[in-house]
Formats: sequence, structure tokens, C-alpha cells
Amino acid sequence: MTQFDPNKLTFDDKGLLPVIAQDHETGEILMLAWMNAEAVAKTLETKKVTYWSRSRQAFWIKGETSGNVQALIDLRVDCDRDCLLAIVDQTGPACHTNRRSCFYTSVIDGTEHELMKPEV
Amino acid sequence: MTQFDPNKLTFDDKGLLPVIAQDHETGEILMLAWMNAEAVAKTLETKKVTYWSRSRQAFWIKGETSGNVQALIDLRVDCDRDCLLAIVDQTGPACHTNRRSCFYTSVIDGTEHELMKPEV
Repeated sequence: MTQFDPNKLTFDDKGLLPVIAQDHETGEILMLAWMNAEAVAKTLETKKVTYWSRSRQAFWIKGETSGNVQALIDLRVDCDRDCLLAIVDQTGPACHTNRRSCFYTSVIDGTEHELMKPEV
Repeated sequence: MTQFDPNKLTFDDKGLLPVIAQDHETGEILMLAWMNAEAVAKTLETKKVTYWSRSRQAFWIKGETSGNVQALIDLRVDCDRDCLLAIVDQTGPACHTNRRSCFYTSVIDGTEHELMKPEV
């Protein structure tokens, strides 16, 4: 068996890679955010999904402030090792707009349609 | 209704944004690749998912060579407008390794486990 080493992933020129968060029960895509090698290691250690906030330039334990945590169920690496898929148990809405998913806007027909409302 | 304009998305310093491809029937995450504004426009026009290949620096109509095309079912924008979710009808395997999905390696327990084999 191959030991997993977060430092052997392929990061971009800022030391980051994109991470997709998917609901473990429904398969719904909740959000996409970024991790550096240390965030990947922290996520695996704590089982709390921990991103790197590009705006704040700091670790971002998802839900630490809002309570809308993501418990890690599985972490998957893609074929190029430059992207991760975090399969999670999401408490509350994943999006900062209070919607379940960040992908609430559909654009298929040239106009934008809101697919879901903020939770109350 | 808001008209969708690919040029009003938020691209990175290389003019790209990440695009998640998800199977429209199973909800499975197939791959993540990149688009520039023109690739987004081409994808919407042709309904054939068209990425920007960072290695070849060229448009990449998914499946043009292999036949493993992605027919666009829905395109979704995230809250920050810096990431897209393409919901697709995938012909054949999505991954260049001939696996259904690029995310075939699970790393949850510190070691890597192969979740699926190449299709034959």
C-alpha cells in the first residue's frame, strides 16, 4: 500500500490546489475551495475539512465560526494529483449566502436562474 | 432575468477558472479541468464541454479524439463566480486512464486505495 504524503501532491504556483466538497449522502456538490499541503494534513488529522483562505491568507476550518462544519468522510485524489475531492457530512448550509450549495445559479439557456433560496 | 456573460466571471491571473464535471444521472464527480471565457462561451454554444488545456495551451473539446464526449446538461456558477459546475452526459470513461472518474484514489486512512479499475 502506498503511504499518502500531502507534500507529494501537485500544487499551483501559490502552493494551492482546488478541493471539491461533495455531500456524502446526496452526492450534491457543495462548494469548491483551496488547500495547501498543511491544510490537507490538518484535514486528514482532524477529520474537519480545513481550507486555506486566499482572501484572509489563513487556515479556514470550515464552520469554525458559523457552526456549518464539514466532517470528512473520504478524501480522494485525482489522476494528476492536482485536485482533491472531499466527501463530507455537511452541517447546515455550505455557502456563505446560507444556501445549501454555492452552485445555486443555473445558466444553461443564456440567462441566470436561481435554483435554491437561502435557508432560514 | 439576468443575461449570462462569460466575460463577467472571475478568472485567475492566467484567465482561467476551475470547472467540475458531474454525471447528470449518478451525481458522480468525473473530473476537474479549466476554462477561459471563450471556452465557457463555446461550451454553452455547442453544448459540448470544451476546456482550455493548460499543458497544450489550446481549446480541448472533451472527447474529440477519444470519443468520450461530455454533452452539457446544465452549467452552474458558484456564489463567487470563480468556479463552474458542468452537469454532463458522459460517454465512456472521463479519465485519460480509462476510468469512469479521475477521482479513483481514496486516501482516508493515511494510505492510498484504488477504488476503480480502467474500463476495457
